[in-house]
Amino acid sequence: MATIGIDLGGTKIQAIRLQKSGTGRRLPARFGELADGGDYTGPVGSGYEVTGTFRLATPASAGPGEIADAVAAAAKEAGVDDVTGVTIGFAGPVDHGRGVVVRAPNLPAFGESVSFARLVQERISIPVALENDVNVAVAGEHRLGAGKGSRDLVGIWMGTGIGGGLILDGSLRRGPHGLAGEIGHMVVRFRGRRPPAGVRGSVEAYAGRASMQSTAERWAKRGRNTSLLRIMKARGRDRATSGVFHRAYEKGDSVTVKLVGEAEFAVGVGAASLVNALDLDRVVIGGGVADRFGDEMIARVASVMRSHLIAPDDAPDVVGARLGDLAGALGAALLAEGL
Amino acid sequence: MATIGIDLGGTKIQAIRLQKSGTGRRLPARFGELADGGDYTGPVGSGYEVTGTFRLATPASAGPGEIADAVAAAAKEAGVDDVTGVTIGFAGPVDHGRGVVVRAPNLPAFGESVSFARLVQERISIPVALENDVNVAVAGEHRLGAGKGSRDLVGIWMGTGIGGGLILDGSLRRGPHGLAGEIGHMVVRFRGRRPPAGVRGSVEAYAGRASMQSTAERWAKRGRNTSLLRIMKARGRDRATSGVFHRAYEKGDSVTVKLVGEAEFAVGVGAASLVNALDLDRVVIGGGVADRFGDEMIARVASVMRSHLIAPDDAPDVVGARLGDLAGALGAALLAEGL
Repeated sequence: MATIGIDLGGTKIQAIRLQKSGTGRRLPARFGELADGGDYTGPVGSGYEVTGTFRLATPASAGPGEIADAVAAAAKEAGVDDVTGVTIGFAGPVDHGRGVVVRAPNLPAFGESVSFARLVQERISIPVALENDVNVAVAGEHRLGAGKGSRDLVGIWMGTGIGGGLILDGSLRRGPHGLAGEIGHMVVRFRGRRPPAGVRGSVEAYAGRASMQSTAERWAKRGRNTSLLRIMKARGRDRATSGVFHRAYEKGDSVTVKLVGEAEFAVGVGAASLVNALDLDRVVIGGGVADRFGDEMIARVASVMRSHLIAPDDAPDVVGARLGDLAGALGAALLAEGL
Repeated sequence: MATIGIDLGGTKIQAIRLQKSGTGRRLPARFGELADGGDYTGPVGSGYEVTGTFRLATPASAGPGEIADAVAAAAKEAGVDDVTGVTIGFAGPVDHGRGVVVRAPNLPAFGESVSFARLVQERISIPVALENDVNVAVAGEHRLGAGKGSRDLVGIWMGTGIGGGLILDGSLRRGPHGLAGEIGHMVVRFRGRRPPAGVRGSVEAYAGRASMQSTAERWAKRGRNTSLLRIMKARGRDRATSGVFHRAYEKGDSVTVKLVGEAEFAVGVGAASLVNALDLDRVVIGGGVADRFGDEMIARVASVMRSHLIAPDDAPDVVGARLGDLAGALGAALLAEGL
């Protein structure tokens, strides 16, 4: 008996086959780095073992049928023998109950309201479920990574946008419309910064990489000098990656230092709001920006959070994600156990 | 078979005896007004009936023993025959699991970490549980009042402070430390207003009556003229009640209009943050300020909320509380069913 978890993003499809082997109680040291290649097999802690893995490029310009073909191929390469269920973590809003992709922000030809779980199920004849991609990553961290031992946690994923997921009383929070976990759209400064898209004054307006870049560009137009955009262009890019932000930050570029400080402040305040409202015992910070900036960023977020808690004596631990690139596929495989 | 719910506040103790009678599917019209006297008996909807009630003044300067005597007396007056459990909604942080009052902000001689459930149970020989007072009120509204039909709601109580409670997947959210529901301490404007106590830039800093009064006093010291404080003094009070705020607002006092507008904005933004993070289908607004300002305040809060939602098509209904002064005791009685 095994399950398959699939992380379906705009650039790659990652499939893993997971089973309970009874061996390996602990996650291997430096698992995050091992995982980033995508072809890890072996123990992942808590008696689970990855027994198959496959990664391929997403045919991003294709329609739902061709993308379902690719997902089915990835599952078959990971190994579908004895597999009881497949869960797909999808980068966009999904209706979990109906197995429908509501919208596919990264897949221009995908369309809306696609019964994607059914499309994949027709190809592999195994029950298939859909989840939001950040939700599966948070579920993975909860069960095998940085959230182990917690029953009430928030995961905050710092990337192009700010994603999130909540585990409450041990279970993934989905909500009546399947929309729960949009931590990035919590307002932390009303009448505050306007992001390129989304909610004014939100965590994402201050901490999403796309919004941070747009702020830097606005400031640059007003004559505020920044090496952030110069480094970006020197690397031949039109998007400031986490690496670009980190390089400009290390050089002490004042615009970047200010933007990163605001981002940390917004994430810390958002975490505090959730802890005050929900009473949580763990905060897990993941995503490309957090991975690149590392423990010092985590520590600064934690400090801001603590200074905004109503019960600082019960402050939750703030920790970095540990499962690297495999968090989503692992979490998806774990959630597939119930199918 | 019946249960007793007790609302233990700084000024009064309200006990009600509740039982399933099978009659009365709907809450009586204008129940909130009927309830405010505190001595209502009769149907309360969903087949429940109040079969006994008692209200007395809290001996606020007494210690835990004497207050337990008063609570036990109130329960006995409401009628303890065939009662299977008693839940006490307490105005302050409680450890539900251990039946302990952590702190009693309104009862100066009460002390900390008091095993208050046990003290009452010794006096009436019926299982006794403790809950936070806003949590029981939200549970009451959920089952019998403005939250009926919802499984995922937040209650926001606008009074001296801003209290709150969450129903998630049909159950009261308590959290690992029993501290969940502190909606008032969510940050809606980081580096924003400092309240007399609590978290900077929080909902309560803008919308709690005590913080609003302190802001008005600060502005008055700087020479900003306001009839709010004049009306308060003319009524011989040193605290601006909801009635004082409402009178000054109706007279068009610019300071009061600004403060109330900010309060509505902060509550609306806080509600939006919770809806974005948790995906809720109902927002219930209660408390003395909301009761006094009525439906127009609810509508303004709803409008602010909607303008900060990431999925406005799925916006929850925003409704006023319906159970008036009996919400807490009713919710406590309902929660006592499991004892």
